[in-house]
Amino acid sequence: MRAVVKPRPAPGLELQRVPVPTIGPDDVLVKVKVTSICGTDRHIYEWDEWSQATIRPPQVIGHELAGHVVEVGRQVRSVGVGDFVSAETHLPCGECLQCRTGRMHVCQNMRILGVHTDGCFAEYVKLPAAVVWKNDPDLPPAVASVQEPLGNAVDTVLAEPVTGKSLLITGCGPAGLLGIAVARAAGAFPIIATDVNDYRLRLARSLGATTTLNPGREAVVEAVRALTGGDGVEVFAEFSGHPGALAQGLEAVTPGGRVSLLGLYRSPVEVDLNRLVIFKALTVYGITGRKMFETWYRVRSLLASGELDVTPALTHQFPLEAFAEAMELMSAGACGKIVLWVDGVPAELDDVERPVREEESRVPVTVHG
Amino acid sequence: MRAVVKPRPAPGLELQRVPVPTIGPDDVLVKVKVTSICGTDRHIYEWDEWSQATIRPPQVIGHELAGHVVEVGRQVRSVGVGDFVSAETHLPCGECLQCRTGRMHVCQNMRILGVHTDGCFAEYVKLPAAVVWKNDPDLPPAVASVQEPLGNAVDTVLAEPVTGKSLLITGCGPAGLLGIAVARAAGAFPIIATDVNDYRLRLARSLGATTTLNPGREAVVEAVRALTGGDGVEVFAEFSGHPGALAQGLEAVTPGGRVSLLGLYRSPVEVDLNRLVIFKALTVYGITGRKMFETWYRVRSLLASGELDVTPALTHQFPLEAFAEAMELMSAGACGKIVLWVDGVPAELDDVERPVREEESRVPVTVHG
Amino acid sequence: MRAVVKPRPAPGLELQRVPVPTIGPDDVLVKVKVTSICGTDRHIYEWDEWSQATIRPPQVIGHELAGHVVEVGRQVRSVGVGDFVSAETHLPCGECLQCRTGRMHVCQNMRILGVHTDGCFAEYVKLPAAVVWKNDPDLPPAVASVQEPLGNAVDTVLAEPVTGKSLLITGCGPAGLLGIAVARAAGAFPIIATDVNDYRLRLARSLGATTTLNPGREAVVEAVRALTGGDGVEVFAEFSGHPGALAQGLEAVTPGGRVSLLGLYRSPVEVDLNRLVIFKALTVYGITGRKMFETWYRVRSLLASGELDVTPALTHQFPLEAFAEAMELMSAGACGKIVLWVDGVPAELDDVERPVREEESRVPVTVHG
Amino acid sequence: MRAVVKPRPAPGLELQRVPVPTIGPDDVLVKVKVTSICGTDRHIYEWDEWSQATIRPPQVIGHELAGHVVEVGRQVRSVGVGDFVSAETHLPCGECLQCRTGRMHVCQNMRILGVHTDGCFAEYVKLPAAVVWKNDPDLPPAVASVQEPLGNAVDTVLAEPVTGKSLLITGCGPAGLLGIAVARAAGAFPIIATDVNDYRLRLARSLGATTTLNPGREAVVEAVRALTGGDGVEVFAEFSGHPGALAQGLEAVTPGGRVSLLGLYRSPVEVDLNRLVIFKALTVYGITGRKMFETWYRVRSLLASGELDVTPALTHQFPLEAFAEAMELMSAGACGKIVLWVDGVPAELDDVERPVREEESRVPVTVHG
Repeated sequence: MRAVVKPRPAPGLELQRVPVPTIGPDDVLVKVKVTSICGTDRHIYEWDEWSQATIRPPQVIGHELAGHVVEVGRQVRSVGVGDFVSAETHLPCGECLQCRTGRMHVCQNMRILGVHTDGCFAEYVKLPAAVVWKNDPDLPPAVASVQEPLGNAVDTVLAEPVTGKSLLITGCGPAGLLGIAVARAAGAFPIIATDVNDYRLRLARSLGATTTLNPGREAVVEAVRALTGGDGVEVFAEFSGHPGALAQGLEAVTPGGRVSLLGLYRSPVEVDLNRLVIFKALTVYGITGRKMFETWYRVRSLLASGELDVTPALTHQFPLEAFAEAMELMSAGACGKIVLWVDGVPAELDDVERPVREEESRVPVTVHG
Repeated sequence: MRAVVKPRPAPGLELQRVPVPTIGPDDVLVKVKVTSICGTDRHIYEWDEWSQATIRPPQVIGHELAGHVVEVGRQVRSVGVGDFVSAETHLPCGECLQCRTGRMHVCQNMRILGVHTDGCFAEYVKLPAAVVWKNDPDLPPAVASVQEPLGNAVDTVLAEPVTGKSLLITGCGPAGLLGIAVARAAGAFPIIATDVNDYRLRLARSLGATTTLNPGREAVVEAVRALTGGDGVEVFAEFSGHPGALAQGLEAVTPGGRVSLLGLYRSPVEVDLNRLVIFKALTVYGITGRKMFETWYRVRSLLASGELDVTPALTHQFPLEAFAEAMELMSAGACGKIVLWVDGVPAELDDVERPVREEESRVPVTVHG
Repeated sequence: MRAVVKPRPAPGLELQRVPVPTIGPDDVLVKVKVTSICGTDRHIYEWDEWSQATIRPPQVIGHELAGHVVEVGRQVRSVGVGDFVSAETHLPCGECLQCRTGRMHVCQNMRILGVHTDGCFAEYVKLPAAVVWKNDPDLPPAVASVQEPLGNAVDTVLAEPVTGKSLLITGCGPAGLLGIAVARAAGAFPIIATDVNDYRLRLARSLGATTTLNPGREAVVEAVRALTGGDGVEVFAEFSGHPGALAQGLEAVTPGGRVSLLGLYRSPVEVDLNRLVIFKALTVYGITGRKMFETWYRVRSLLASGELDVTPALTHQFPLEAFAEAMELMSAGACGKIVLWVDGVPAELDDVERPVREEESRVPVTVHG
Repeated sequence: MRAVVKPRPAPGLELQRVPVPTIGPDDVLVKVKVTSICGTDRHIYEWDEWSQATIRPPQVIGHELAGHVVEVGRQVRSVGVGDFVSAETHLPCGECLQCRTGRMHVCQNMRILGVHTDGCFAEYVKLPAAVVWKNDPDLPPAVASVQEPLGNAVDTVLAEPVTGKSLLITGCGPAGLLGIAVARAAGAFPIIATDVNDYRLRLARSLGATTTLNPGREAVVEAVRALTGGDGVEVFAEFSGHPGALAQGLEAVTPGGRVSLLGLYRSPVEVDLNRLVIFKALTVYGITGRKMFETWYRVRSLLASGELDVTPALTHQFPLEAFAEAMELMSAGACGKIVLWVDGVPAELDDVERPVREEESRVPVTVHG
């Protein structure tokens, strides 16, 4: 089968022909229809420090997917051939303290699809039946594939209720954009979003941000205060992985408010804990993975409601073979979420395949500091 | 001034001329623009057992309002003349255990506007400054007035998060209708609503119910299960005060789910606690009043977002003088929320003033048991 | 092997010789050292309505145990031969909504050891490895066996924090007694306990109740108020299954307080929901089983701390063969928890084997209504 | 009256004669019996950067107290002459977002007794009646005075339940020692405490720490893991204000665990957020002040229970005049909590007045890395 492979310990990926996986008694084999690209995949492509320490080439990468079950192991009862499925990509051990106390998303022996095992940038992928998620057959495949990162956004934004609360989201990359869509579906208001990339701020508004701010030009903290009667926001969700955004958000959140951290930082971060966390009596949540499987059920409900529309975040739909072009777009920050179609992009999606041109991204911002 | 008064311990109310209240150092005087009718007001009109035990005539009744401050006591700093305001109508003592531990909505010495003090079915009302709520000047007065019952709906529906969760609301009177609107703004799905009154079920759909069921004709529990993949709903909010609806809802909620009780029952209710509460490990919240003032802030945010539209629930707009007609409509169940305008209904609202005719309420229901 | 069997659909149990169970690849075989008697076992002995509908004779009964692993299935890695173990006795399916969302204690397809499968009133018992709990080898076997009901008590009392809070426990049977011990270890104060049986009230005091009340002689609600400065208790845990105790507790809990229901009622119960639940804004938890496996970890920690001493609740230690005498003692309410030793009671426990004599149980109560 | 005064903007304090305060209609005047010293007082004594920016001399300092009401303002009903009282020392505005949403401990306009107003290192102190707390008349005055810092410890340790959970406390100064006592009363186990000062570790054990570790000699993270079966602790409470302790604690807490931060840092702290907070999915609480007045009720219950004994933390009892000696002891870390008696130390406390001698503090530590 065709597969995108990290062939050797060096930058880059290659499209190769590799054998179709063979499955065990508790596994299923899925014919992949679409897969989508996560920042992790880009890190592996670029072969950063984390990748060098973690990945053991040769290996098929990729972990976000939607497809159909074509074979099930003999002990599998929860899913059948023909089911349209996606998958939780964190593979917990089931036996550690965390797995036994409802926190398997932080399993001490976690293995990750496409990182510790062969992934889904391929025609077929092997999955333990326990992590397979049955989709509504009518769910668009690209949306089905991004349920996995959407789950991160749900856990980040909904770590505590946001309905009827003010919210700041810093970082409007794919994850932040999904977070904005979740916040809007959940009834947060105002939804203030920041990014240094105006193209992404435009996407942010199309997903439901009520105000966008470019910290390169605008005084974020002052603007947030002005928009919240001087109080600051009740909720701050950090998706950027940028220390400056973290500091601005901690400053902008109201005393007694709540913070969720999803964005990853290049290195340890200096934080004024006294003034920005302790005296403000903040609650700060570190967010990783998705709660299994509570998050998936909430994602399903939100998508079915029609209140959560993530399609504006899916800016590019490419054939699998265009993986390298996709990686470069991601590195340039010139995209939202990129979807790869294993057997080619359907004709009806052709017109959304083209990236938004640069000149289109010069949009007026709505608040000035 | 004109005021609707319970003149003597007997059924009925009268429009009378009474003196404008005089205020103390911590009070404000409000010129009432609109007031809206609560089930409590109808109980006082009908002079039921509770009213006989509680009300001390002669007294002005009414407690939901919007208006403008025309005078403030000398110690009042939080609000000024000209402010457009509504009010929390529960007047806590500030000194009991509950008041000192963030639960003043269940103050042990609670007094209620229009029940224990003269109310707002009048040109002017006296309010302690501590319970006055400043509105956005652009908020429509009728919406401003119903923030108070909307707060009950918020506390009922949002006692725990509903975003991305299935929900059953039993009882589509004014409170239940507001609950449906809140659930929709908060991203609950599906939102299943029941009532024996088809007119109200039609209103329910216009406020966001995704399925409505008439238990007089349909098998509610079976329908709820069918709509939730056999699991039942995660959240059950009881607004009806009907024991049968309570039993159906407890049956229809999934094990480990959550229940909020707002509707009041005519008498003690027989509940199969073993099977419907204990073995199901439900969490049941009794809901009363509104959390002060957290609920008000959330209501403000929801209304400002545009995601919460309660206007379909405001079926009738009457002049204050039509209070008796309004009470009879309520008793007949032929209305949503009724708004009374103290100085006459504005011309632009004339066309929503008329009740929906009976033949319009015969609408197809969407699920059959 | 020797086993206590329900031989036919009729009252009573018999000691029989039956084959040692054979285990599957995911099971373990345990040589039982001690087992303890639950109210459920007594219901099966008495052959009540529930038993008739549920049990399929012939069957070995019993589900609380401690023993040593003597054989493991070929796929079992989490436990080994020689381990000293107890077991969660609720056997969830692992695939339903509840199992996938951290609520497997209310699995929709639950099977229960000794109810739906052969139990542990026997020399050997077969257990799925997934529910086996490894004990500290130094834990006394009788204490190890009662970890299972102790888990119910933990979930009941600790459904919300009790540290530094006032608490009422109604019903001082074995479960309530364990609840008192948990409340004490958790720093609740005062701990008020009620029962109509003075012998049990004496046990209650020995386990940490700071005040005991006999509702047959004392005005419980008034006494609770007097002990809490007029406010009532913050927490009410109902272990009795008696409607009168439920009503007294709901009356005695402070507005905004919390209620946990564990006791089972003979029939549906009439509750004044308006006055006792809704207007008081109570939170009511139905409690069933134990949270898997969070509860077990907390029980382990509490037992290891030395702060939780349940031994005063273990009033009788019998050989397995004395099961019928034990059942009669339970029916008479003349015991706390009864422990059965499969191979005879150790000599050093001989002196605690005898029931407390009736005259010893006439003790002064500490509060009079 | 006699009072300890910061006379001018420079290091040091002076005992002076100043006028007895005059009270307003909402105030009470308290004759101070005992006062205790907080780290804040030492900062004012030493005249650090924070003090220079905050304190406006001349001013009476001090904020922890117990005494008797000798005069009440004419509007005061909640407290009367002769009452034995302590006080919440944070004086909230009552009107900001935080005050109106149950978070007045982070009032945006907070004023603090002895910082922004004249304090209680004096014969008399003026207090707003709203912050006065009535004590049980039998509560020892020194214990009554330390209820205020005990409240910080309660909020830190009990931010989430600790009953039946493992806990690490870093920093065994007065606040940390009180935290240990709270953890023990709440049934946490094990309770692991760290400090670089062996004298304080000895105090830690006397207050209930089950293991103490000196990071100057021992490998804290490894020891914590060894004590928790390799998992790390469920709860980490940071009282030290030392960045190294923070890092060790974040390392030692189990994934999905909880962290409370009370200790203040000299400067911003570098934190490996990715590895230690985000990937571990920790919940981190900033703790400041005490929740009004929920914390006070819990402290009252804990002290009344007899389960919480803070007296081993009260290492020194001095007359008010010995304030300078007390400050030096604190700077040297050679004490727990120091209590000052305004009218002299009672004879029966004479023998606890002497500091523990240095040689007594060389005690064996219980775990080696």
